[in-house]
Amino acid sequence: MHDRISSLGEKKLISRIISRARSVFGSSEVMGLGDDAALIDAGEEFLVLTSDLLLETRHFPDPERPRDMGWKTVTVNMSDLAAMGSRPEGFILSVALPDLELEFFDSLMDGVIEACCHYQAPLIGGDTNEADEIILSGTAIGRAEKDMVLMKSGARPGDLVAVTGPLGVGAAGTELILSGRDTGGFENAVERSLRPVARIEEGLILAESGLVSSATDITDGLVSELGELMDASGTGMRIYEDRLPLGREVPEIASILGRDPLELALYYGEDFELVFTAPPTGMEELSDMMELHVIGEVTVGGGIEMVDKDGVTYKLHVRGYEHLSPG
Amino acid sequence: MHDRISSLGEKKLISRIISRARSVFGSSEVMGLGDDAALIDAGEEFLVLTSDLLLETRHFPDPERPRDMGWKTVTVNMSDLAAMGSRPEGFILSVALPDLELEFFDSLMDGVIEACCHYQAPLIGGDTNEADEIILSGTAIGRAEKDMVLMKSGARPGDLVAVTGPLGVGAAGTELILSGRDTGGFENAVERSLRPVARIEEGLILAESGLVSSATDITDGLVSELGELMDASGTGMRIYEDRLPLGREVPEIASILGRDPLELALYYGEDFELVFTAPPTGMEELSDMMELHVIGEVTVGGGIEMVDKDGVTYKLHVRGYEHLSPG
Repeated sequence: MHDRISSLGEKKLISRIISRARSVFGSSEVMGLGDDAALIDAGEEFLVLTSDLLLETRHFPDPERPRDMGWKTVTVNMSDLAAMGSRPEGFILSVALPDLELEFFDSLMDGVIEACCHYQAPLIGGDTNEADEIILSGTAIGRAEKDMVLMKSGARPGDLVAVTGPLGVGAAGTELILSGRDTGGFENAVERSLRPVARIEEGLILAESGLVSSATDITDGLVSELGELMDASGTGMRIYEDRLPLGREVPEIASILGRDPLELALYYGEDFELVFTAPPTGMEELSDMMELHVIGEVTVGGGIEMVDKDGVTYKLHVRGYEHLSPG
Repeated sequence: MHDRISSLGEKKLISRIISRARSVFGSSEVMGLGDDAALIDAGEEFLVLTSDLLLETRHFPDPERPRDMGWKTVTVNMSDLAAMGSRPEGFILSVALPDLELEFFDSLMDGVIEACCHYQAPLIGGDTNEADEIILSGTAIGRAEKDMVLMKSGARPGDLVAVTGPLGVGAAGTELILSGRDTGGFENAVERSLRPVARIEEGLILAESGLVSSATDITDGLVSELGELMDASGTGMRIYEDRLPLGREVPEIASILGRDPLELALYYGEDFELVFTAPPTGMEELSDMMELHVIGEVTVGGGIEMVDKDGVTYKLHVRGYEHLSPG
């Protein structure tokens, strides 16, 4: 009788907010709504704005590493800017904190400032509050030329689908840390989990090339993000299992943990690579400019298909890493 | 040995972050740092950006009224824009939520969208997460002409100090609600507590007049905000008890609660009026354009003095509503 928000799941919850907002505001006012970041008209450019909130108990594999927590808070926001092909311009940090040791607090801030330096996005404002756990809310501000900005919509049947780097590494690292097992020999996966790097340069290359038809970042899992591009573009997608660039260490870590490596690559967030579409000739040009891995193609419709190593085609269910997931 | 952040208090904690950021970034890059909102260069204008985070258990006198919670989340952010004399342009909402009833969630969003409409700031983006309590993080975006923007710095000795409306009403309403007593007859104070209104129009009048030397909003209590203007301007302040425009109902509510009405007006947040300084001739002009109450004057230095009803001068301690307060 009294439905709860978990009965909808995160994506439908967001759609619910978006449709309410669209019913009230003009479509030119809410251009970026539903995309990775919001767009504000600033003359010849767009100001690109995004806000993401991270909680000590839910978003950090190791909450004993405050510097990494600060770094990651900036990175998840910068990754949304990267997904729009936008150049970072500044960062705002709102925190709510328990009564931390000053040394811990300073390390947290060092991580934030270190990341702000890395992304050339000065810390320009903020707010502090008290809370029972560490809550870190970031707002990233960037700029993009109006006709260059990357959106989720625009993929066309026949376009190729590509990712900017290996898949499943952040997921494998995160699961390894959470398992409490020895992480020796897997420093790269651990680093990718604790100190992910947003693909700002790659986003700028993609945007400035003018060759890309749609793009997003893989923070919620590849299949979920393909679903986003598909829904925004009104197309389908077909990907090939043997073209997925699984990270080198992913099979071994998955085996240690008794997990399916493909599941880590397809349905887990934390990769922070970009996934994008471009016509075949454009993709060819782009491959001379940057690392990219073509994993499939855009289809007319009918959801996401995967062709496995034996050539058998099956449908992928779009779930990804859904917070507030049903059931 | 291991100091905690509570040993510093909120203001010193913020100063600590600011001085770290200033040591790394150029001063032109971090113009608004320490002010009510951040400033981003956008040609002839500034983009004005602010982010505030509210928690179910700490910032809402009645967490059973989701629509009011949504409204207030937008308002506290808009109030920072008002303090800069900026026109709202958009709002971004990041939420982390427990598994709410859908009806409660919809009311929360109705409150957000209602407030966005009121302030003419479309909801342009957002993010959702799971959490154990309701966490609402807003980012407000506004615009201001470069030479018009209101800052905390700029007050000069001899300027007058004024506020845009009655003091202590939101505080009295909040304390009355929290006491669990009958609120009958005090609808105005209750409304001011649950559905405060940011002084956007007043901020725009002040900014466009070009007459104002410094300004901020009174979310953390009058004395605390006077301290902010003073510190940023390198001056002192003198205020007169008999000029403070205590809200009509404040003495009666204070008496019911056994509280000092003056304390509610001086040291409690929730008023959402603006406090500002201007030279005497400018203040005269402004008083023809809007409601304002002159409460004192800017002095050369020496902290905040209050002259009481008997003409006795004493020092006010700058504490206001400090989160993370020492001791």
